[in-house]
Amino acid sequence: NAGLVRAEIKQGIRQVIACKDGNGKVGMKVKAINKGIFVAFVNKNSPAALAGIRFGDQILQINSQYVAGWDTDKCMKVLQKAPSERIEFAIRDRPFERTITMQKDSTGHIGFVFKDGKITAIVKDSSAARNGVLIDHHLIEIGGQNVVGMKDKEVSEVISHCGTTVTITIMPTFVYDHMKKCLGSGLLKKMDHSIPEV
Amino acid sequence: NAGLVRAEIKQGIRQVIACKDGNGKVGMKVKAINKGIFVAFVNKNSPAALAGIRFGDQILQINSQYVAGWDTDKCMKVLQKAPSERIEFAIRDRPFERTITMQKDSTGHIGFVFKDGKITAIVKDSSAARNGVLIDHHLIEIGGQNVVGMKDKEVSEVISHCGTTVTITIMPTFVYDHMKKCLGSGLLKKMDHSIPEV
Repeated sequence: NAGLVRAEIKQGIRQVIACKDGNGKVGMKVKAINKGIFVAFVNKNSPAALAGIRFGDQILQINSQYVAGWDTDKCMKVLQKAPSERIEFAIRDRPFERTITMQKDSTGHIGFVFKDGKITAIVKDSSAARNGVLIDHHLIEIGGQNVVGMKDKEVSEVISHCGTTVTITIMPTFVYDHMKKCLGSGLLKKMDHSIPEV
Repeated sequence: NAGLVRAEIKQGIRQVIACKDGNGKVGMKVKAINKGIFVAFVNKNSPAALAGIRFGDQILQINSQYVAGWDTDKCMKVLQKAPSERIEFAIRDRPFERTITMQKDSTGHIGFVFKDGKITAIVKDSSAARNGVLIDHHLIEIGGQNVVGMKDKEVSEVISHCGTTVTITIMPTFVYDHMKKCLGSGLLKKMDHSIPEV
């Protein structure tokens, strides 16, 4: 199942190499949480998006510097000052997120209700209930495709275009709200929603 | 590495079969969080412990009933009324937890400070910093062995008895505090700290 593969949150650390665009931008924003640095925004078609950096990824290292303990501003400044041609990142896959795989029933439903991307109710004895989907979690990806900033209707369409098997990636709402703080609705509209290559 | 294997949080759902002891107890307490049911306590040497049920596991099904949406009391009552000889559980491995593997430095340190089981500081450029350990998280397991309810000194001893490679399992403190609510210090002392079989 391609969605399951695209959604996979791997253990271990991956190396990512990105450059800057013509305006000197990598195309992402970060947010410091619990002394770690997390990707809070990836701009559509930006170098960060093309390099496969995702919303929720934890950045561990930028070029030769470890980022643990940095605040948001310090990290953004280091990114701004980094050379245009080559920025080397060490990244841990989306540590605050986890995936749940479900099967649509005969009416095409998986069995949860969401509002503004937040899961608010679980349908009794549905696939969501059987698989342990929780409320007060935000939908971050469907089949590995980022849906942050999409309208609920668009998210429903992404789900309806999945086959019978649907893999969702969720994050506790208290973390999501924290990460979203630095994003206005303007930025949310520019979020990278491309389907990851695998 | 045995610790890494013991600590693994698997995707998917496992089936567990347990019975009751001579006093009619399975030996665990649960806590409802976000419309899910989570294991908040496993008693040393109890049927639950012997069946491999762990602190933080999400219970999805008890015998033929799906538990999504149940409150803590309802679940405890169903457990009390369940037959003694055979209780069948569907369980998802510790969804609020994740593992981080580190290497001790030449002085035997991995590079974080903890107090009452909570990570409070990360040492600059340590293995913890390089691997993205976060503060405001609680230590739940070391090398797959539960350490909830141990004194900090005992936890340090468990870490010192690991080899060079140490795998920790952590949970955000806000979830931990919620799960701990139903446990007095008396119960915490009885927590199962056995080394899981793999």
